[in-house]
Amino acid sequence: MSAAEAADGAGPGRGAPDRAEPDRGEPIEDFRTLGAKLRNWGRWGADDERGTTNLITPERLIAAGRLIRQGKIFDLGIPLDGNGPQTGAFRINPVHLMSATGAEQPFPSGFRYADDYLFLPLQAGSQWDALAHVFYDDQLYNGFPAGAVTVAGAGRCSIDGQAAGIAGRAVLLDIAALHGVEWLAAGTAITPDDLDAARRRQGGVAVGPGDILLVRTGWRRKFLQERDPAAFMAGEPGLGQACCAWLRERDVAAVGCDNWALEVLPFEPGGVFMGIHMVLIRDMGMTLGEMLDLEALAADCEADGVWEFFLSAPPLKVTGGVGSPVNPLAIK
Amino acid sequence: MSAAEAADGAGPGRGAPDRAEPDRGEPIEDFRTLGAKLRNWGRWGADDERGTTNLITPERLIAAGRLIRQGKIFDLGIPLDGNGPQTGAFRINPVHLMSATGAEQPFPSGFRYADDYLFLPLQAGSQWDALAHVFYDDQLYNGFPAGAVTVAGAGRCSIDGQAAGIAGRAVLLDIAALHGVEWLAAGTAITPDDLDAARRRQGGVAVGPGDILLVRTGWRRKFLQERDPAAFMAGEPGLGQACCAWLRERDVAAVGCDNWALEVLPFEPGGVFMGIHMVLIRDMGMTLGEMLDLEALAADCEADGVWEFFLSAPPLKVTGGVGSPVNPLAIK
Amino acid sequence: MSAAEAADGAGPGRGAPDRAEPDRGEPIEDFRTLGAKLRNWGRWGADDERGTTNLITPERLIAAGRLIRQGKIFDLGIPLDGNGPQTGAFRINPVHLMSATGAEQPFPSGFRYADDYLFLPLQAGSQWDALAHVFYDDQLYNGFPAGAVTVAGAGRCSIDGQAAGIAGRAVLLDIAALHGVEWLAAGTAITPDDLDAARRRQGGVAVGPGDILLVRTGWRRKFLQERDPAAFMAGEPGLGQACCAWLRERDVAAVGCDNWALEVLPFEPGGVFMGIHMVLIRDMGMTLGEMLDLEALAADCEADGVWEFFLSAPPLKVTGGVGSPVNPLAIK
Amino acid sequence: MSAAEAADGAGPGRGAPDRAEPDRGEPIEDFRTLGAKLRNWGRWGADDERGTTNLITPERLIAAGRLIRQGKIFDLGIPLDGNGPQTGAFRINPVHLMSATGAEQPFPSGFRYADDYLFLPLQAGSQWDALAHVFYDDQLYNGFPAGAVTVAGAGRCSIDGQAAGIAGRAVLLDIAALHGVEWLAAGTAITPDDLDAARRRQGGVAVGPGDILLVRTGWRRKFLQERDPAAFMAGEPGLGQACCAWLRERDVAAVGCDNWALEVLPFEPGGVFMGIHMVLIRDMGMTLGEMLDLEALAADCEADGVWEFFLSAPPLKVTGGVGSPVNPLAIK
Repeated sequence: MSAAEAADGAGPGRGAPDRAEPDRGEPIEDFRTLGAKLRNWGRWGADDERGTTNLITPERLIAAGRLIRQGKIFDLGIPLDGNGPQTGAFRINPVHLMSATGAEQPFPSGFRYADDYLFLPLQAGSQWDALAHVFYDDQLYNGFPAGAVTVAGAGRCSIDGQAAGIAGRAVLLDIAALHGVEWLAAGTAITPDDLDAARRRQGGVAVGPGDILLVRTGWRRKFLQERDPAAFMAGEPGLGQACCAWLRERDVAAVGCDNWALEVLPFEPGGVFMGIHMVLIRDMGMTLGEMLDLEALAADCEADGVWEFFLSAPPLKVTGGVGSPVNPLAIK
Repeated sequence: MSAAEAADGAGPGRGAPDRAEPDRGEPIEDFRTLGAKLRNWGRWGADDERGTTNLITPERLIAAGRLIRQGKIFDLGIPLDGNGPQTGAFRINPVHLMSATGAEQPFPSGFRYADDYLFLPLQAGSQWDALAHVFYDDQLYNGFPAGAVTVAGAGRCSIDGQAAGIAGRAVLLDIAALHGVEWLAAGTAITPDDLDAARRRQGGVAVGPGDILLVRTGWRRKFLQERDPAAFMAGEPGLGQACCAWLRERDVAAVGCDNWALEVLPFEPGGVFMGIHMVLIRDMGMTLGEMLDLEALAADCEADGVWEFFLSAPPLKVTGGVGSPVNPLAIK
Repeated sequence: MSAAEAADGAGPGRGAPDRAEPDRGEPIEDFRTLGAKLRNWGRWGADDERGTTNLITPERLIAAGRLIRQGKIFDLGIPLDGNGPQTGAFRINPVHLMSATGAEQPFPSGFRYADDYLFLPLQAGSQWDALAHVFYDDQLYNGFPAGAVTVAGAGRCSIDGQAAGIAGRAVLLDIAALHGVEWLAAGTAITPDDLDAARRRQGGVAVGPGDILLVRTGWRRKFLQERDPAAFMAGEPGLGQACCAWLRERDVAAVGCDNWALEVLPFEPGGVFMGIHMVLIRDMGMTLGEMLDLEALAADCEADGVWEFFLSAPPLKVTGGVGSPVNPLAIK
Repeated sequence: MSAAEAADGAGPGRGAPDRAEPDRGEPIEDFRTLGAKLRNWGRWGADDERGTTNLITPERLIAAGRLIRQGKIFDLGIPLDGNGPQTGAFRINPVHLMSATGAEQPFPSGFRYADDYLFLPLQAGSQWDALAHVFYDDQLYNGFPAGAVTVAGAGRCSIDGQAAGIAGRAVLLDIAALHGVEWLAAGTAITPDDLDAARRRQGGVAVGPGDILLVRTGWRRKFLQERDPAAFMAGEPGLGQACCAWLRERDVAAVGCDNWALEVLPFEPGGVFMGIHMVLIRDMGMTLGEMLDLEALAADCEADGVWEFFLSAPPLKVTGGVGSPVNPLAIK
C-alpha cells in the first residue's frame, strides 16, 4: 500500500466500509466485550505464541492419524499464479518468473536445469493468518505489545511459531449444501445454528477439542465459475460473530474457510470491519485459514458420508511472517 | 542470472566445476547408460507427470497414518529469511518485507492489521525439485519435450502436479551417525552399503515401495555451527551414483537430504555435474527434497529407536513452478 | 504471464485482438513490406545496437543545450506506485515496500535510516522500449538473431546499450490540442498530415535529424480524470502506420507518447497487432517512449509558444534489460 | 532485514561499528552541534521538502546548459545486475527476470515481444538518497516528524519530491588523482583542504551556489579491479565531517561520490556512524548520490582539462520512496 493510499484511508476496507449495513438483524455484541469473555490469554503460559493450536495434543494427533482409512488425499490450496482472486487494490496475485529454462546453457555433459522465483503477498492465496496478523488496543494475542510488529517483521506471534504444525483431526461443515445453494450470498452471516444443523445433516459429525474446522460457503465455487476477482472480493458470506463463542466452547484448534476473510462482509449490524478476526485471532489466539478450495473434498464427503479426516497444513517458516501460503492436505 | 553471467558460463556450477576430481575411486557408470537402465518412463502411463510419487498407493498411505503413535511433530523446513545458506552467486536468500505493521492505520474501531510480501527463489531453502527442474538430451521425465519448459513456466512436470501430495511413510537413515561424525566431509559419496549399514544400525528399519527416504549427512549441522553460506555451498557430502539403483530396486517414492543438492559434490570420478539429479529426476521421475533440517528428528530417532514416521510435505501449488519451498512435517 | 495464460494465447493482445476493425479507411501496407523499405540495418555498422539514437550527434547535442533558455524543468514520468495504469492482466503496477523506517533501530548515536525495495515490470510506467523488446521473423534490429533474447536477458540490443543517452533536442506535437479535444478517441490513427498540421499550428516548429519527438494524444489526461486502468488499456489513439515513413524521412532519433503503446489500437485496417512497433523498433531501430505525462509541459508550451526544448531521459542500466523505467526531464 | 537481524543489532553498521577508530587525528565536532550550525531548515519555507536542490535556480540552469560544448556524454550509473557491489548482508544486488522472451508466442502475424521485471533495493547501485533516508532526534529535514516515514513509505521528503530535477552545472573533483593514487585507502577522510587543492590542480575550477559536486575517491576503480563486494563494503575513503561546512559555505546543491556511503568509514575520531549523512541530509537538506562510476568521466576531464559539465540525473518517481536508482548523464 502506497503512502497515497494510506493517506486516503484505503486498504483492506475497500468494498467493505467501516460501517454497518442496515436491517440485517439484531445488533451484535461489542467486539471488545465479546473478546474479553472469550480470551485465552495466559491459558498456555505467559510466553505462548501459538494459541489454540496448543489444543492439538499428542493424543489427539495420534487419533487423527487413525482417520486415514481410505488413502485419499485432497489438496485444498488454490493455484498460485496471476489468475488468482486478487484485484491489486489491496494485494496482488503472485508473480512467478523463471530465471532459467534449460535453454542456452553451457554444460558439456548435457545437463540442463530450470529455476524460478516467486513474488507474492503471503496472504495472496490459500493461507494461514499468523496471530500477529490482526490486533487492537495496542496488544497482540496473549498481551504482547503491538509494537512487536515492526517493519522488520513480527517479533511475536509470527507464523514461524506455528511451524511444527498445523496438523490434526479436521471436520468439514458444508453450509452451502445445508442450504441447498451453490454458494451463500455475500453478507450472509453463518450462525451457530447453521453449524449445528450442518453437523446433524452430516451424520452428526462431532466437532470437539483440538479439531480443525473447515467451513464451506461455496464462495470458491463462485470464483471458479465467474473468474471475477472484484466480485469475489466485494463482500462474502462467512462466519457471524456468534460463532466465536461456539468455537471457544468446543475448543476448536483452528478454523478455515473458502472465502477470503472467513467472516461475513459486510459485517453484521453493530459490528465493525474485521471484528471477528479481532476476537478470534487477538483474543482467542486462533489461527485462521482462508481462500481454501473445498470443492472436491466436499463432493467426496457428500458421496461417502465421511466428514472427518486428517489435515496437514504446515505453514512456511517465514521468519517474522504474519501469514503464510499453504497447500493443506486433507487425507481420508 | 544475468546475461553477463550466462555469457561467462556461470551458474549452478560455481564451486562445483564440470570435471571430475582425481583419485577418489573407480570411475562410475556413464549417467546416460545408467539412466536408460533405471528409467520409469511409461510405467504410470504416457501422460504421467508425477513419477515415483505414484508409488504412494492408498494402502500405503493408510499404513503410514498408523505410524503416528506418539503424537510428536518435527518440522523439517529451514527458516526463510536473509540468513539462509544462499550466497547470492546462484540464488539469493528469501527477502521478506512488510507492507503493513498496524501503525498509522485509519480504522476508527481500533482494528489493526499487519501484512507482508516474500520474494524468493523457489529453491532458496527447504524445497522440492519439480520433475521439470532437471533434464538432458531435450527430454524431460517420461519423454516430454524439454521445450515444454519456457519462460512462462513448466508446461509439463511442474511442481503443482505434485500438489495432492507429498505424504506417506518416511524413513530416516543417519549416515553421519553411522560414521560417528558430526558431518561427513564434502566430496564423501554415500554408497548403497552405507544405506544398508545405517538400516542395520537403526534396528533393521525397512525401506520399501512407496516410502520417502530421508538421508542425514550432517551438512545442516555444519551450517548451523558455522553460518558460512560459501562453505555450505562449496561442495557437500551426498548420495553417490550407485544409490540410484538402490532407490529404484526398493521403489522409493521420494528422497530428501539435509545438504543443498542431495548428491555428492564434487562428483565422483567419471561422473558429471548433477549426474545423479539427471538419473533420479529425469529418468526415474523421482522428486527430490533438499536443505531439510533433520537435526531434531535424528536426535529423537536416536533416543527412541523409531526411525519411521508419517511425513507430510505438500508443495505450494505454484502454477508451472519447477520447485517449491516446503516445511515438511515428520509425525511419529 | 503464467503458463496457463501463454497456452490460451493471452498476453499483450488482451483487449487488442489480432484482427482489424472494419470500416476505418483504406487498408495499410503490409508491415513487412514497409519495414523492408524503412530499414536502417547496417547504417551505423554491423555491430550497432543503438539504432536511431546514433542520430544525436555531438553537434546536435551542443545545439540542444542552447534550448535551455528559461530554466524551466518538466518531469514527464508518471508516479511509480500501486495506483498506476496497469490492470494486472498483462503487467502489474510497481510494488514499493519499505525495509526500514527508522523505528526500533539500535544505534546509540541517534542515527535513524529508512530503506526500501521496488518490484516492477520494467515497462509498468513511463518507459523506454529497448530495441530487443519487439521483433519478428527471428531477427532483432540490425539482423541480430532473435535467439539473443533468452531467459537470462537480451544479449543484443538491451536497454543498457542506450545508457549513454538519451538526451537531445525534443519537440512536442500536441495532436489533441490540434483537434481541440481533451483526448483523441481510442482507435484514432494519427496521420502524417496531423503531425504537419500540428507543426504549423505550433509556429512551424521544425522536426529534423536527431530530434526526439513527443506526441500528445491526451490519453494520460483521460487516465488522470478517470483513474480507470481497464479503460486506459482497452485501446488508445496513437500513431498510424504512415507515420513510420514520416519519422524515417526526418531522421527522428526517438519518439515518445502519452499512451501505453505509442501506436493506435485497435490497429488500422490491414494492419496487425503491434505492427508499428515492429517497423519502428526492429526495422528502423527506433527507441520508443511510452506512458509519458505531457500535461504540464503541453500547457506551458501552449502558453509560451515554445515547443522545443532539451530532453534528458537516461534509462537505467539494467544489464540485458528489454525496457527501463524513466523520468524524462524536459528543460526549456 | 529480518526480525532476527534487527534483534541482534545488525544492519548498515556491519563492518562499520558504532565506535571510533583510535589515533586518526583530533576528535571532530559533535554532529548535533555542527548540524545546528549548518541547518537550512525554513530557508525555503516551512513546507519545503527539496532542500538544497532549490539552489538550482532558472538562471543557473540556463548557464549550465551552456556547458554542453563538445557534445560528449558520460553515463555515471553502474550496471544493475547480480554482479553489483552488494553482499546481501544489508542490501542485495538487483534481480532481473524475464517474463517473456519471444519464444512460444501465439501471434499469427509473427509479432514477438520480450518483457522483464526487476526487484531491487532502491539503493542497491547508483542512487540518490531521498531527504527522508536519514534522520535523528525524531525529526527529518526541515523539522518534519520522523513519524512521517512509515511502512507505507515516506510521507515527507520522499524522492519523488525531487522528480523535477536533478539537473544543473556539475564539477568533478578528483581526490585520488590529487594524491596520485588509484584509490584512497578505506578510512581516509577527505578534507576541505583536499577539495581546495583539487580545485587548484584542476585549473582552479570553481564550485559555487547551485552546483552539483562529484567527488572521486577511486573506490569504484577498486571494485572494478577486485570485484570483491565484501572489500568494497567493509569501509571506504570519503568526505570527512569538516567538508559539511565547506559545502554549506559554497551553497552546493547536491553531492555525489564513487563510494557507497559518500562519507569516510570507519568514521573519524569523535564521530558516529553516518554522522555526515545526518548533517548533510537531515540538517542541510542535501541530496546525496552514491556508487557513481566516475572513471571514464575523470579520464576525459584529465585529458581535456574541463572539469565542469551539465549533469542530468532524474530520480525515478517512486511515490514515497526514500531513494532512487539513477543513471546520471554528465554532458560536456
